[in-house]
Amino acid sequence: MLTNAEEGLDKGNWQISSDQLKVKDHVFSIEQKVLHGGKQEGSKILTIHSKDGLTITLSPTRGMNLLRIEGFGSRMGWDSPVKEVVNPAFINLESRNGLGWLEGFNEMMVRCGYEWTGHPVTADGQIYTLHGKAGNTPASRVEVEVADSAPYEIRIRGLVKESTFKKADLQTLTELRYVPGSNSFSLHDVLTNHADYPHDYQIIYHSNFGTPILEEGARFLAPMSSISPFNDYAKSGLKTWQTYQGPTKDFDEMVFNIQPLADENHQTLAAVVNKAGDKGASIQFDTRQLPVLTLWKNTDTIKQGYVTGIEPGTSYAYPVTIEREQKRVKQLQPGASAQFDLTYTLLHDSAQVAAVEQKIAQIQGDNKVAENETPIAKE
Amino acid sequence: MLTNAEEGLDKGNWQISSDQLKVKDHVFSIEQKVLHGGKQEGSKILTIHSKDGLTITLSPTRGMNLLRIEGFGSRMGWDSPVKEVVNPAFINLESRNGLGWLEGFNEMMVRCGYEWTGHPVTADGQIYTLHGKAGNTPASRVEVEVADSAPYEIRIRGLVKESTFKKADLQTLTELRYVPGSNSFSLHDVLTNHADYPHDYQIIYHSNFGTPILEEGARFLAPMSSISPFNDYAKSGLKTWQTYQGPTKDFDEMVFNIQPLADENHQTLAAVVNKAGDKGASIQFDTRQLPVLTLWKNTDTIKQGYVTGIEPGTSYAYPVTIEREQKRVKQLQPGASAQFDLTYTLLHDSAQVAAVEQKIAQIQGDNKVAENETPIAKE
Amino acid sequence: MLTNAEEGLDKGNWQISSDQLKVKDHVFSIEQKVLHGGKQEGSKILTIHSKDGLTITLSPTRGMNLLRIEGFGSRMGWDSPVKEVVNPAFINLESRNGLGWLEGFNEMMVRCGYEWTGHPVTADGQIYTLHGKAGNTPASRVEVEVADSAPYEIRIRGLVKESTFKKADLQTLTELRYVPGSNSFSLHDVLTNHADYPHDYQIIYHSNFGTPILEEGARFLAPMSSISPFNDYAKSGLKTWQTYQGPTKDFDEMVFNIQPLADENHQTLAAVVNKAGDKGASIQFDTRQLPVLTLWKNTDTIKQGYVTGIEPGTSYAYPVTIEREQKRVKQLQPGASAQFDLTYTLLHDSAQVAAVEQKIAQIQGDNKVAENETPIAKE
Repeated sequence: MLTNAEEGLDKGNWQISSDQLKVKDHVFSIEQKVLHGGKQEGSKILTIHSKDGLTITLSPTRGMNLLRIEGFGSRMGWDSPVKEVVNPAFINLESRNGLGWLEGFNEMMVRCGYEWTGHPVTADGQIYTLHGKAGNTPASRVEVEVADSAPYEIRIRGLVKESTFKKADLQTLTELRYVPGSNSFSLHDVLTNHADYPHDYQIIYHSNFGTPILEEGARFLAPMSSISPFNDYAKSGLKTWQTYQGPTKDFDEMVFNIQPLADENHQTLAAVVNKAGDKGASIQFDTRQLPVLTLWKNTDTIKQGYVTGIEPGTSYAYPVTIEREQKRVKQLQPGASAQFDLTYTLLHDSAQVAAVEQKIAQIQGDNKVAENETPIAKE
Repeated sequence: MLTNAEEGLDKGNWQISSDQLKVKDHVFSIEQKVLHGGKQEGSKILTIHSKDGLTITLSPTRGMNLLRIEGFGSRMGWDSPVKEVVNPAFINLESRNGLGWLEGFNEMMVRCGYEWTGHPVTADGQIYTLHGKAGNTPASRVEVEVADSAPYEIRIRGLVKESTFKKADLQTLTELRYVPGSNSFSLHDVLTNHADYPHDYQIIYHSNFGTPILEEGARFLAPMSSISPFNDYAKSGLKTWQTYQGPTKDFDEMVFNIQPLADENHQTLAAVVNKAGDKGASIQFDTRQLPVLTLWKNTDTIKQGYVTGIEPGTSYAYPVTIEREQKRVKQLQPGASAQFDLTYTLLHDSAQVAAVEQKIAQIQGDNKVAENETPIAKE
Repeated sequence: MLTNAEEGLDKGNWQISSDQLKVKDHVFSIEQKVLHGGKQEGSKILTIHSKDGLTITLSPTRGMNLLRIEGFGSRMGWDSPVKEVVNPAFINLESRNGLGWLEGFNEMMVRCGYEWTGHPVTADGQIYTLHGKAGNTPASRVEVEVADSAPYEIRIRGLVKESTFKKADLQTLTELRYVPGSNSFSLHDVLTNHADYPHDYQIIYHSNFGTPILEEGARFLAPMSSISPFNDYAKSGLKTWQTYQGPTKDFDEMVFNIQPLADENHQTLAAVVNKAGDKGASIQFDTRQLPVLTLWKNTDTIKQGYVTGIEPGTSYAYPVTIEREQKRVKQLQPGASAQFDLTYTLLHDSAQVAAVEQKIAQIQGDNKVAENETPIAKE
């Protein structure tokens, strides 16, 4: 237990290693560090470092968001102009007309939810700020568990509370599982409505990849029944949704709404792979839990943030008002929970890339991809 | 002196006990603790623990608000869905259209003021946020004093500043007095206008009680000349203002405006007592200082926050615009002060409850209670 | 290096002295201190104390703003009703309709910029808050350098980042240089646009002086081609712009827009001197870098904040919308920098005051000052 708000405790700087745990098969360490300087004053990061596997860095202060995953000569993550792990104390989500979230955005994965998600909108007399509050909420409880026998799976759990008198009591117990030495990890998040009233929820797993995977000629892969542009600007990119441009001045961003296909177990995969097909990142998820997929192509210049988002969710990125209208906002009954299971894999050779590609082709089967030119909504 | 902004000092975790003070008659301790985890990161609580009396917990970080009072098998306080002692650094009072205050509300007593109080409203081009800023302002100076002779009265003082260039320089020196072993404590707050110009002020002592005092059949007691519903919704509860329902789904809240009566010394009492009449909480106050009383019945479900508020104030809970119109907003001349003295008692047997009831009946005397069906204002 | 966000480090409380540095000629110390209490919880101040010179106090937490400069029986700075070094974590710049900045304003010099400056305005769907964000942005890197040979010049550098995904990547490397024993210091700030797109910028060096320099009969000195009132209220003060009133109830503030004249090297000077002409403060700046000058006369009562601002800038204090219209908003190309060099001198005898007066007269030469009665814009 690193942090426990119920007891008011936090361990601060803390470290444990496989040596201390008397694990022989793998060399790994887990470390919590309190950061200083600029707007990251007081932010905590928690890092799993697996010598022959991945280095996974997440931030308890920023809703257990994943900052970056490195290993096997590659990484999942990107380079934002925001370099610091911004403490939410310095962020006003309502600033910039509801875009304050952008002042801290640099993660490989941000949970966008759960009270609401999507683009900001003023409705019901309030601002629904960009992508909700969970990603800027310090975790109330953080615990690390290492299995005491091979393969010594590591589990990091964090409790993220969106509890406001009269408004919501949505609590998410996030869990990351990682087996030292492996090239993948998984998330097992359980969102529970602790209130006595039903409550809406939305979630987008905003997962972001830049270099070295993203490059000119990199490809996006996912089985789908349909794809359509998010808005008029994205129309011109519809025909080339399967490939990426290099860093392109004035590109800004094109977003696409995807209806994913899944296998008989409701599992599906989406991936971005580099041009040579020997590096990539894939996300496996369950379409019962996360029925829609957003593809965000932000292939602007390197300094502007050259990045693509692969974003499984309950919703697309439209404002909550549109998502409500189009019936994608889900609801939890009192005491009820929703689970979200995702597996992220850092693909680091041609065989791994080929295997993902094959799996995706298999799910796609003979199903045609409908490329619908008309956006399903207008902001 | 635990905290002194003028010298930039704070003692952090700190404790003193009756033993250390060589007090023999009573066993007590006073402890300051810095909390961690979630949105309470860095919040401080200060606890008086009297072995044969009350345990009083307040938060210097949250404007010297009283979190909870426990003792004699009972408590003053309630269970909010907000469990943490939220550091104001994580609160945006303007969020949710001026309802951001709700993200931290869980106290037994919050000072709602002093620049403004009441429901949020946009006026003069700005948002007057719910219940003002004092309750979310860290105390600039905190000091603890223990009398060196019996009955060893403990005094905790905190300075809460609302100082903004060109806008206000209202400073409140809060003081809590407690005699170890007793079942009551008192507040003696002095609000001073340090500016060279007159300044409006408003204050509501938002005092909140849940289980075990509040229950189905619990009763509200106060001498009054009149009571009226705050709004149309509360009309249906007017006839039963003297009793409480149990936790009731979809009840939400009913609010009543009360014109209290006082004795010849301007002292009055309001109380909530349980059904059996052997548990309760009373507040004694001075109607010259706090001329009006709000009764807040929030007898919704337990998890929603089953609670009643007994709220002596200068104002009702209407937005400042209405309070101005109806002439309840007070003003302090340059250098002038207003004092507020309240005594809270945790009633823990039938005799104590009966005594309060008798005192209230005595103040009421032959005066009839006018139950006015029409709200005095419409938001 | 005291703070380095890249490495997540901060030294916290820290001190070094001329003794430790084996400097014999001068006695000085440099100290960083973490403050506590009220809204300054966690704020850092950094103080250069030169025994026979100036004591310069700045705050890394508040954008390297200069709090106060003391020495030679005088000071540069003023007395705001805001006494604490407010941690930006407790400030909502958007509050009070964009005037939240006033809740922390008490510095001798605040950098007002760089994304925008001036009075607040809602435009482009967002609030441009009063005087921008730099002054409420904790420095990401702070370093102190002391030359290892006479005159042992001290340099304090701080990096202030305004980096927001898709919005801006303006970074300012501030530098303060001080030679122990002297009565002046200089600023050498370099603002760089790290983005791949051009970006607008504005800056006002909001430099503020109160007692003992400001008093009834104190004089404002600057060479100029023209001066005009900022708004209708200031019209009545136009004829007496050269002198100051004593603390005056209901004076509020008068602001004047000045077009400064400079010498052949584009250097100019502005100063405030006391009535006797033996105390003062001057600012030397470069009109190519900072082409306009705002004079802020806030000679209201002492407690209200008796102060004058001498504010060289790229802009006047109008909202960004007006500054854009009137073409005073500057732009930086990708990778480009703008430098700002200012020298502040604490004048402490008649000879120093006379020298400044002579220099200003020399720059003014035969040029007439046009006193234009009509404000150049209307908010």
